[in-house]
Amino acid sequence: MPSLSADDDPRLGDVSEGTVLRAILARTAPASHAILGPGDDAAVLAAPSGSVVATTDTLVHGPDFRLAWSSGYDLGWKSAAVNLADIAAMGARPTGLLVALAVPRNLRLSFVEQLADGFRAACEALAPGCSVIGGDLTVSDVLTIAVTALGDLEGRRAVTRAGARPGDVLAIAGEVGLAAQGLGVLFGRFRDGETPIPVDAGQLAPGEHAAVAAQLRPAPPIGLGPTAALAGATAMMDVSDGLVLDAGRMAAASDVTLAFASDALGEDPGRALAGGEDHALLATFPPGALPSGFRVVGAVLEPGPEGVLCDGAPAHAAGWDPYRDWDAAVG
Amino acid sequence: MPSLSADDDPRLGDVSEGTVLRAILARTAPASHAILGPGDDAAVLAAPSGSVVATTDTLVHGPDFRLAWSSGYDLGWKSAAVNLADIAAMGARPTGLLVALAVPRNLRLSFVEQLADGFRAACEALAPGCSVIGGDLTVSDVLTIAVTALGDLEGRRAVTRAGARPGDVLAIAGEVGLAAQGLGVLFGRFRDGETPIPVDAGQLAPGEHAAVAAQLRPAPPIGLGPTAALAGATAMMDVSDGLVLDAGRMAAASDVTLAFASDALGEDPGRALAGGEDHALLATFPPGALPSGFRVVGAVLEPGPEGVLCDGAPAHAAGWDPYRDWDAAVG
Repeated sequence: MPSLSADDDPRLGDVSEGTVLRAILARTAPASHAILGPGDDAAVLAAPSGSVVATTDTLVHGPDFRLAWSSGYDLGWKSAAVNLADIAAMGARPTGLLVALAVPRNLRLSFVEQLADGFRAACEALAPGCSVIGGDLTVSDVLTIAVTALGDLEGRRAVTRAGARPGDVLAIAGEVGLAAQGLGVLFGRFRDGETPIPVDAGQLAPGEHAAVAAQLRPAPPIGLGPTAALAGATAMMDVSDGLVLDAGRMAAASDVTLAFASDALGEDPGRALAGGEDHALLATFPPGALPSGFRVVGAVLEPGPEGVLCDGAPAHAAGWDPYRDWDAAVG
Repeated sequence: MPSLSADDDPRLGDVSEGTVLRAILARTAPASHAILGPGDDAAVLAAPSGSVVATTDTLVHGPDFRLAWSSGYDLGWKSAAVNLADIAAMGARPTGLLVALAVPRNLRLSFVEQLADGFRAACEALAPGCSVIGGDLTVSDVLTIAVTALGDLEGRRAVTRAGARPGDVLAIAGEVGLAAQGLGVLFGRFRDGETPIPVDAGQLAPGEHAAVAAQLRPAPPIGLGPTAALAGATAMMDVSDGLVLDAGRMAAASDVTLAFASDALGEDPGRALAGGEDHALLATFPPGALPSGFRVVGAVLEPGPEGVLCDGAPAHAAGWDPYRDWDAAVG
């Protein structure tokens, strides 16, 4: 934070764990679903419908983000958003986050404060009523943000990947391919050799601002998860690893073929089919049940030799695998 | 695993994420409280009493463990145990774990399989009915194991740190100081200069085996958490950072003085007061309510200038702070 001198903004290695925790907790919103919030051995969260939906996803410096490109605020926001999306994809409403931070000791306290601001802002914008209910703080040479999100089904059944039926419509809510476009901009133009360099907004074409923002600070349509469940979605999932790759998982789980129409996939269907990290919701609905906020992108067909088709032809896309893509991702 | 050649035991960087996840899931027990287990965007866990207890704790290679000293099995076990203890400390019964692994790509697949075995074994031994219900896998240069544990209060109120009352008895279940003794053995004798070296069991004196095991593979009395709650415990916590340090937190939260008697603290009261990482349960009970499995170690007094006394004198102990102790811990 430019307004702070280094003396006002100590490194984490020079302050106590309690100081850091107090700084975080001062910035995260009161936990509205929490019966008992942070500060004891564990939090207690309301689970009024007798079950809790739970997911965990981790961001690691290197494969998942670069500090040259992401601010603390961006990282807090994104770490929250990707986990909220997994809760929404079950048709549930997010109720609480647990945040496990492993931080280098030379990191500034203000960075952790920005992280906390990002968590709070993402919850307020994407999942009102959800907030940080607990966490953990430890040290590591590699900045690592492991988030667990919890949610409530409000009496509904979970919408899994396994319920799509031939005759259903295939629909999407949210962006597909935009975050991948943003990553392409970052890798293509904001590196000095292999070293990431800060994004200069002045170098971004008008259409690129949204793409870079979608990569660094995605805003998946969390509220549409419960909406889809209420409308009768037969299957749903978060598109995190790439549309074709993820759709293939839904096709396998449901034992159906998912057939996309390229003219429903925006101006760059290839990018939409391959791109991940937007955290759109991919869902199937009985005919006539499509809720507002979702757009039809294809149809559910009987199972066949290919799980995913586009315009009738087999669709293949690599998607994202942290192991396979490790070498490509570093730098 | 000695029976495997390197070809049979690939490095994680040479296999797909799916291969690793299948290896883990094949080794974790079926999730008895899970309405929906691993494999979808999120798990769904029963929360029959209308709330869920949630906590997260991370182990990072370096500050929290050394691969020279801990096997994969040890790490899975310990990562589970320390989180189960936080659930038990609320008086709740653990119902599920989410495991977020960030693993170096040169790690062997068998190591992750051992981790999974350790998680399963710890759950079966310490918290029957609890199992891994979900997780996440990513790559990092620093092996990092972030676990979230969930639990059920079975209709009871959570036992916080804030309910101790003057006149209550102060009691402990589990070891205090043994894990610290074990850490002393490891740092004292199993290093080559600053580099940790494998533990040679033949070099351990009879009493040291248990101490090293308590450090590497702690076995806190998880089932006694619900027992304490049923017996009417007024306050309870997991002793992770050191008995005096943690007792000071309970004393502050409850606005009381906690007075230990050294003759109730075993053969080395100083070590018991300073040592952490055993994950004993420290609890307070109304007179006459002490359940089996807990032993009286002192009394709860009116608040005074000192939060924690031992034999009537102020008790101070540093305990464990990952920031302050970072330099001392590395090596």
